[in-house]
Amino acid sequence: MVQALDFSMMAKALHYAALGERNSSPNPCVGCVIVKDAEIIGHGHSQVAGGAHAEVMALAMAGEAALGATVYVTLEPCSHFGKTPPCANALIAAGVARVVVALRDPNPLVAGQGLARLEQAGIEVEFGVLHDAALEHHKGFFNRMILKKPWVRIKTAASLDGRVALKDGQSKWITGVAARSDVQRLRARSCAMITSIETVLADDPQLNVREFSVVRQPWVVILDSQMRTPCEAKILQQTKVIVIAAKESERRLALEASGAEVRVLADVSGERVDLPALLNLLAQRGCNEVTIEAGGTLNGAFLQAGLVDEMVLYQAPVLLGEGLPLARFTLSQLADQFKPQVFERRMVGVDQRITLRFTHIQSALQGVN
Amino acid sequence: MVQALDFSMMAKALHYAALGERNSSPNPCVGCVIVKDAEIIGHGHSQVAGGAHAEVMALAMAGEAALGATVYVTLEPCSHFGKTPPCANALIAAGVARVVVALRDPNPLVAGQGLARLEQAGIEVEFGVLHDAALEHHKGFFNRMILKKPWVRIKTAASLDGRVALKDGQSKWITGVAARSDVQRLRARSCAMITSIETVLADDPQLNVREFSVVRQPWVVILDSQMRTPCEAKILQQTKVIVIAAKESERRLALEASGAEVRVLADVSGERVDLPALLNLLAQRGCNEVTIEAGGTLNGAFLQAGLVDEMVLYQAPVLLGEGLPLARFTLSQLADQFKPQVFERRMVGVDQRITLRFTHIQSALQGVN
Repeated sequence: MVQALDFSMMAKALHYAALGERNSSPNPCVGCVIVKDAEIIGHGHSQVAGGAHAEVMALAMAGEAALGATVYVTLEPCSHFGKTPPCANALIAAGVARVVVALRDPNPLVAGQGLARLEQAGIEVEFGVLHDAALEHHKGFFNRMILKKPWVRIKTAASLDGRVALKDGQSKWITGVAARSDVQRLRARSCAMITSIETVLADDPQLNVREFSVVRQPWVVILDSQMRTPCEAKILQQTKVIVIAAKESERRLALEASGAEVRVLADVSGERVDLPALLNLLAQRGCNEVTIEAGGTLNGAFLQAGLVDEMVLYQAPVLLGEGLPLARFTLSQLADQFKPQVFERRMVGVDQRITLRFTHIQSALQGVN
Repeated sequence: MVQALDFSMMAKALHYAALGERNSSPNPCVGCVIVKDAEIIGHGHSQVAGGAHAEVMALAMAGEAALGATVYVTLEPCSHFGKTPPCANALIAAGVARVVVALRDPNPLVAGQGLARLEQAGIEVEFGVLHDAALEHHKGFFNRMILKKPWVRIKTAASLDGRVALKDGQSKWITGVAARSDVQRLRARSCAMITSIETVLADDPQLNVREFSVVRQPWVVILDSQMRTPCEAKILQQTKVIVIAAKESERRLALEASGAEVRVLADVSGERVDLPALLNLLAQRGCNEVTIEAGGTLNGAFLQAGLVDEMVLYQAPVLLGEGLPLARFTLSQLADQFKPQVFERRMVGVDQRITLRFTHIQSALQGVN
């Protein structure tokens, strides 16, 4: 029977799970706590792939005290020999009395067999505690296992009037320092970053994690139908780069010599990259979450194809003009962008009402009163 | 000396002031409460122009009890004979002991003389209580008195990707019911609504208040350089319509016959309306707050000219595509607009981070767990 303590302890297990989400792919980042007499005697999370699983970390911390304890784990313990032995076996050997699990493992190699093995060994098993929160945490792994595609996220930034850059392409930076740090965290949790040749040519981005150290950088994937990526592009200095083209080109050798893997994945037109095939390839490579950082053309193509799970939009409180809400309003320098005071933001039904002030009443009228 | 009670009572006075803000223009909507032994014995707000002022309303309610009481009023009591006799005189006649005022009246006909007259009569006067909040409330009147222009507000609505309409012009409705009601309230508090001939031709708007009854509809001003407004346009059915042209035209007579006032106010080019001259005209007509509901061209022109005090942007949680963040994403029907789940909105530094979900994880993956 599920007890009140089970929810708070599973929340702890999810907390530990979150600690490793940048490192464990292609494995899901599982969290685990071991509890005896309402005290946590062991905890752990999945290590870098090939390293210890969450349950093994937690058992090592608990030691002999695990005998008769309750184990909370965000995902069903594995029952198969992968790079490490089955966690179900380790739990049985440690003599735990009860195992509480949030989600069944969607991996067909496990899929309920872990739970069954525990029950056969006489261990009490509970299933479904904090199911939704755990699904949110493990969404990338679930997408890959069930839908054979990663969780696909578009990251984009825009001004309040829906502009991503000035007409001449100036776009560094619309958003502020905190948003850019946030993007670094999105990259770190992504297994791959996807961009377009247009973005490479326009911005020469690196798409790596630079603000803090990570045990693995994401793959970098360039959609480049005609293999136009310049050999001196900064992005080719990343360690894991895949150029996806729509047709063969004599430039393949030069790109490969620059360290990139080159793949041809054409759609039926033969002119463009086959986006579902690309996502399938990335799933096969073990990508749970991927993030697209590109321009409107690629964003729109993924969205129109129904391939996007999530869009993270950083909306800067600036006006860049020449967009549809402010057509006859032109800036020549990004530094000139209108940064009005955001006087108020509030929800009005489903819409957000944003009041911008261009006049500071206090200063304009202070003289009089 | 200012006392703690003064702040809460002035807040009450501002509350009453807000009740009349749709009606009193060109007068400022003043609020007043009369307090004795910490109890409110009278309150009032400015009535329709020519009707009673706030102080007179409150004195009438308090009656003889006003003797020795404290009066809280958001704006300095008037000292001149306008459409009604001076309020300062009425307060003196009622024998009040103390008058607390938030703001000096910027009207050169008053400008401190009201306060001076009260002090000469032996009444204790306090000034500056809730000064900033009162300035916010009276911003339109202060703008008109000091800067000789109304408080100019742009109202606009856009999708998250910065679109105001589909390519073919479909724009009804991007925002929801609550936002449209909110626009009705903005119109009601505006002394004039400003639009462009382009908007009249494209949308045939009325720009009036329809959801609730008001004692006065705002003026409607159409910027129509070449007097192209069709005589059958719905907007000409409003009671107070001004067509502002940049040059004379034989269509003047037809527009006047349709009930509109026609004015020519050309800028130096002789091709466009002189926007500062227009605002000056509206200030002369007693307009404290005006709202622009037009397209990007007119919005941008006002903004670029530095004439805008405030912009209210209703941002609908939809994606319309073909804008810069989503170029290759096309909708043919507004009803097809992408309405993703707004999974999260939070501030990241100065930027707003908006997470949209296209996939409902629970339903997509429910089968397995």
